[in-house]
Amino acid sequence: MGAVAHIDEIAEKLAEQFKQTAVERDKIGGNAKTERDLIRESGLLKLLIPIEYGGLGGNWHDVFQVVRTIARADSSLAHVLGYHFINLVTPHLCGSHEQKEFYYRETAKHNYFWGNAFNPVAIQLKAEKTMTGYVLNGVKTFCSGSVDSDVLLVSTLVEGQDEPLLVVIPSKRIGIDIKGDWNNMGQRQTDSGTILFDHVEVHDEEVLEQGFYASEFSQLRLNIATFILNHVYLGISEGALQSALTYTREQTRPRAITQTSAIEDPIIQHHYGQFYVQIEAANLVVKKADQILQELWDQPEKITPEHRSNLDDALQTAKIFTTQIGLEITSKIFEVMGSRATASHYGFDRYWRNLRTMTLHVPVDTSIQSLGKKFLLGE
Amino acid sequence: MGAVAHIDEIAEKLAEQFKQTAVERDKIGGNAKTERDLIRESGLLKLLIPIEYGGLGGNWHDVFQVVRTIARADSSLAHVLGYHFINLVTPHLCGSHEQKEFYYRETAKHNYFWGNAFNPVAIQLKAEKTMTGYVLNGVKTFCSGSVDSDVLLVSTLVEGQDEPLLVVIPSKRIGIDIKGDWNNMGQRQTDSGTILFDHVEVHDEEVLEQGFYASEFSQLRLNIATFILNHVYLGISEGALQSALTYTREQTRPRAITQTSAIEDPIIQHHYGQFYVQIEAANLVVKKADQILQELWDQPEKITPEHRSNLDDALQTAKIFTTQIGLEITSKIFEVMGSRATASHYGFDRYWRNLRTMTLHVPVDTSIQSLGKKFLLGE
Amino acid sequence: MGAVAHIDEIAEKLAEQFKQTAVERDKIGGNAKTERDLIRESGLLKLLIPIEYGGLGGNWHDVFQVVRTIARADSSLAHVLGYHFINLVTPHLCGSHEQKEFYYRETAKHNYFWGNAFNPVAIQLKAEKTMTGYVLNGVKTFCSGSVDSDVLLVSTLVEGQDEPLLVVIPSKRIGIDIKGDWNNMGQRQTDSGTILFDHVEVHDEEVLEQGFYASEFSQLRLNIATFILNHVYLGISEGALQSALTYTREQTRPRAITQTSAIEDPIIQHHYGQFYVQIEAANLVVKKADQILQELWDQPEKITPEHRSNLDDALQTAKIFTTQIGLEITSKIFEVMGSRATASHYGFDRYWRNLRTMTLHVPVDTSIQSLGKKFLLGE
Amino acid sequence: MGAVAHIDEIAEKLAEQFKQTAVERDKIGGNAKTERDLIRESGLLKLLIPIEYGGLGGNWHDVFQVVRTIARADSSLAHVLGYHFINLVTPHLCGSHEQKEFYYRETAKHNYFWGNAFNPVAIQLKAEKTMTGYVLNGVKTFCSGSVDSDVLLVSTLVEGQDEPLLVVIPSKRIGIDIKGDWNNMGQRQTDSGTILFDHVEVHDEEVLEQGFYASEFSQLRLNIATFILNHVYLGISEGALQSALTYTREQTRPRAITQTSAIEDPIIQHHYGQFYVQIEAANLVVKKADQILQELWDQPEKITPEHRSNLDDALQTAKIFTTQIGLEITSKIFEVMGSRATASHYGFDRYWRNLRTMTLHVPVDTSIQSLGKKFLLGE
Repeated sequence: MGAVAHIDEIAEKLAEQFKQTAVERDKIGGNAKTERDLIRESGLLKLLIPIEYGGLGGNWHDVFQVVRTIARADSSLAHVLGYHFINLVTPHLCGSHEQKEFYYRETAKHNYFWGNAFNPVAIQLKAEKTMTGYVLNGVKTFCSGSVDSDVLLVSTLVEGQDEPLLVVIPSKRIGIDIKGDWNNMGQRQTDSGTILFDHVEVHDEEVLEQGFYASEFSQLRLNIATFILNHVYLGISEGALQSALTYTREQTRPRAITQTSAIEDPIIQHHYGQFYVQIEAANLVVKKADQILQELWDQPEKITPEHRSNLDDALQTAKIFTTQIGLEITSKIFEVMGSRATASHYGFDRYWRNLRTMTLHVPVDTSIQSLGKKFLLGE
Repeated sequence: MGAVAHIDEIAEKLAEQFKQTAVERDKIGGNAKTERDLIRESGLLKLLIPIEYGGLGGNWHDVFQVVRTIARADSSLAHVLGYHFINLVTPHLCGSHEQKEFYYRETAKHNYFWGNAFNPVAIQLKAEKTMTGYVLNGVKTFCSGSVDSDVLLVSTLVEGQDEPLLVVIPSKRIGIDIKGDWNNMGQRQTDSGTILFDHVEVHDEEVLEQGFYASEFSQLRLNIATFILNHVYLGISEGALQSALTYTREQTRPRAITQTSAIEDPIIQHHYGQFYVQIEAANLVVKKADQILQELWDQPEKITPEHRSNLDDALQTAKIFTTQIGLEITSKIFEVMGSRATASHYGFDRYWRNLRTMTLHVPVDTSIQSLGKKFLLGE
Repeated sequence: MGAVAHIDEIAEKLAEQFKQTAVERDKIGGNAKTERDLIRESGLLKLLIPIEYGGLGGNWHDVFQVVRTIARADSSLAHVLGYHFINLVTPHLCGSHEQKEFYYRETAKHNYFWGNAFNPVAIQLKAEKTMTGYVLNGVKTFCSGSVDSDVLLVSTLVEGQDEPLLVVIPSKRIGIDIKGDWNNMGQRQTDSGTILFDHVEVHDEEVLEQGFYASEFSQLRLNIATFILNHVYLGISEGALQSALTYTREQTRPRAITQTSAIEDPIIQHHYGQFYVQIEAANLVVKKADQILQELWDQPEKITPEHRSNLDDALQTAKIFTTQIGLEITSKIFEVMGSRATASHYGFDRYWRNLRTMTLHVPVDTSIQSLGKKFLLGE
Repeated sequence: MGAVAHIDEIAEKLAEQFKQTAVERDKIGGNAKTERDLIRESGLLKLLIPIEYGGLGGNWHDVFQVVRTIARADSSLAHVLGYHFINLVTPHLCGSHEQKEFYYRETAKHNYFWGNAFNPVAIQLKAEKTMTGYVLNGVKTFCSGSVDSDVLLVSTLVEGQDEPLLVVIPSKRIGIDIKGDWNNMGQRQTDSGTILFDHVEVHDEEVLEQGFYASEFSQLRLNIATFILNHVYLGISEGALQSALTYTREQTRPRAITQTSAIEDPIIQHHYGQFYVQIEAANLVVKKADQILQELWDQPEKITPEHRSNLDDALQTAKIFTTQIGLEITSKIFEVMGSRATASHYGFDRYWRNLRTMTLHVPVDTSIQSLGKKFLLGE
């Protein structure tokens, strides 16, 4: 359903390259400069930019396909690439028409890699009005893709205003100190660390004019990160399952004297049957949400609150489902591989670590309860 | 995606009528003569018959929609109606062109209700060749919808032949003794009992000429019952969940002093969130298989072995998934309703009993293992 | 660990008798007069009464052993017998020394079968003070074992008092109308229906003098029913599993051509392995709680709040665990038996119906949450 | 039930020390020389040696208590200490009376730390008879605790003999090359790597005279490692749960505006309730197996095949149960802690990695199936 030809080939090629070093880089953590540059060179940063602005004219299906393909090999890079798109479209969603056009064109022209300083839960960043804009002071956390980014999307609070201010600034502006301090058990090359802001100037034209709540369309910004998460989650599970399949076929020892290969084992087969059903169902719930998004994206002015409500139901369903089956699959693959598959050089534990880290973003229990409450109240 | 307008209204009306007496009839078991006649009167028996032969020209989506709607209220009647369609299309699949036309026309004209004497696991029915056809002797079991049927589809073994013979005969032919002895813990009004055959004559033209294995198209007969099962399974779960929702909203007592209603309980909300996700995913896996079937049905001559393999993967996935989530939902609804919901007059246990009975048709473990084996071997 | 010899033989003999008719009586529901009289004749009603008062001198382990043995065959009769003991010991726990002695002696002498009108959630029964005692008016629900009882334990509210009044009265006292209206999906012969009280006189000496909160010992009354429930739950699961074992061994058809019997099926074996582990663990959690109870019972004056807290932790753990594994086992046994095991004459669905009905007493979620809260707060 | 006083204090003190550096050492892997020397200094290596031979006279309960306590803090060190005891008692089980006495005395005197070269699945080590004993050539894998060990227990095959030879040799004997190459995703400081044997001489008196199959008692050797595994598994889960409790209490953010602390969250409480029940049941199944072992150990000459069968049932039950609940707990703790708990400096993922690595020893599915088969066949 994507709009751009050969995108999957480009993504597959990148994934193949990333896979060669994924285990090693997972150990090291830190910034994946080489791989980020390969992404830059691939042209994929422009994928979602309309052709008229110098981009590839891709749609969300293209983006998700690319993110998922890369997530199977390296979920950190899928994560930062996915967040690039979320940030890139924010002027489109929450800015003026001129801002949309400006940032699309500039990104296409300079091949910008966007970084994130957006996490709305981190409220220690304050903006103060000046003559020509604002000045920012404080801290943001969980700033995925911040290191080595060209442009940052920043959300910040202004004294006396409920709604956060959204601003776009160069990552190298004076006063910005990207710490590069992300060191967690999973998603280790996402650079999801801290940024310090010390008297950082923002010009008026860098403030997105509409903000979150200007329209039904602009409010899509509240949901859109979850789409990326879902594809990273599902890509991790698919990557884990593919690794397990190869390993079971080639290396797992038979469990009974009557077997010549582990693939004959009925209980191992049963596990794979269950995995297959889970992945297949996950694909369908994710796809349903994706389709609703693309439809709304294509007709921004027609979006109603009911549309957004339906979108959110489908999206949360996909998030919950991919979380649950992913945690099960990434832990159970070891049952069908066996003891020797725990050797560090395989790095098979990274699937669980990456997924476990990433699925804590908003507690899945909160999503389940919210969805259930809505269902129960018949809202 | 159905082809016939207002079908859902007709089905909803029937479902509403059946619901009034479903609990009582579940207790009694036996033949649902009154309700079967309401189905006859509704015109739905002709739903799948092409317009040119006097039918309504519906497609499989129409059939599944009707079966599911009725299953929410009464899964026994959904079962026998679903099997009517499976049997009705057997001459189309496994007979000559003339047989297809003949049985469609006759069914449309006489409003036949087809019954089942087909169960291939029951191998105690034998056919012996005569001058003008065959004579049948022996027994068939699990003959759903046999009592009060007008026509029976029968499978039988012929000495020295591997492939079973498929024949269509009037239910009242001399020598047929439909015992009406189905008395099981669930699906209690499906008349899935025994038929005795004592020197039952079959004329040559009543034997379906092609049989199962004549073409890729004819082999769809091997899968098609599972589609009906899936919609009955899912209809049962949806019916259970709808009953629970109504009950929790209206009758369940608050669990904590701080609550004025059970719908405020976070853990009850959490259960409903989980149910919602399961039902939603089940809908999507079922729909995917349905769409493949309809595509193949519409282009019978283009079906390849690979098509059938893909169909079977989607179908088994749907079967496994609807079985697993259904067993969970039909048991867990009591957690969100409470103790008083066990009163017999509600009959809420029938959802579990019906599903538990019906999901044993082919062991779900066998389906899971087969699917896993295929996946693991990369077939 | 029991104190009375041959008790298990007596219980096994009763269980064997009850088993012959359990399926049929489950269908009929209502009062099991014949079987209740067999219990009366067995002498078991006196099991827990000290020898000095004319009883058998059994301890709680004896009682639980008897209840569990009977529950494997017929959980309704196990339920009413178990509740007999709970009610019988209430004067011991909450009455004066004279009342304890009086009711033990009278029960031993007249072989009383005690019934329940105790459910503290049912608060529509009111007591009004008179010159010589009280007069009762109103309704009690969930009165297990009320029909055909000789004596009733009744809890009732008195205007202006927080603590309920506990009284013991003959079941046939004027003004008592035991409706015998229990008609639910499970535990169908427990007579857990409604009792109407219309100006029922209670004499002062029939009021238990101490009440619930007189001592740590008296407060055991709040927990003690759950012990009976746990043994009935576990007995149901054991009965279900024993039925399944027999059926799989003798009747289940092999699932693969390479098998001569279903017992060779690796996945069926795997299910049984899981069942075994669950039942084994359930036995141990139940046993732990039982031992604490017996220790406290033997030294009533030494009980501290901490003892009761530990007892409650062990008890709730046992309740939660037996509920969860029981619901799984009673539904999954069908997977290892197959389709024909759903025939009504086997009545294998009664295990799930009985357990599902009984485990809603206090919501298991409430117990889990309470236990978790206590654990989390470090109380 | 242990036999030695103050053992738990010693173990607690070691655990406390190990805990300080456990996260860091998990990252580094390799040999925990410092901590192994602390174990040596603690005197615990002599715990199981009878007093008459210079030991502390502890029983298996003492050993298990120590192993579990340490496993809560550092499961690698618990593992190597546990295996020390398994290897140390092998001369007792499979040697002559003189060998038992000799190795107990020598170990007590020199404070030997025993290492493992025993893995019977690794069959690439061959022994050839010489004039004075044997000469060993080949490889052993999964040699836990081999680096920095003083003595090795080795199993090896002799051409033409079914039964493996068991020998005890100094770790520094010429020709032994302990590679120290264990580098896996969990249990990273267990030194479970490879040993190369190049013409290693064994003297006749170093061969354990009885072997595995001399008596029912000697065959306990086949089971005894699983006891250690169970306690390490359960210790890991307890350690994980304790870390989570502390974190939730002190650091997890409230999830709803109405909450002032995460400990008020009903769904978090519910998770902890479920964890509590699982851990409690796991404790009981483990304890039951332990008690049977100690009883048999105390009366070696009275052991019958039935005793060993019962021991094995209890042991496998404990293994299966601790594996299943442990994998669930070590993954789900993150749900009750939240996103920030994934920071590397906490090292909370090590619980899952350690358990996941260790529980693949013998596939849990194989244990479940074997237990189920035995149960189903009524053996």
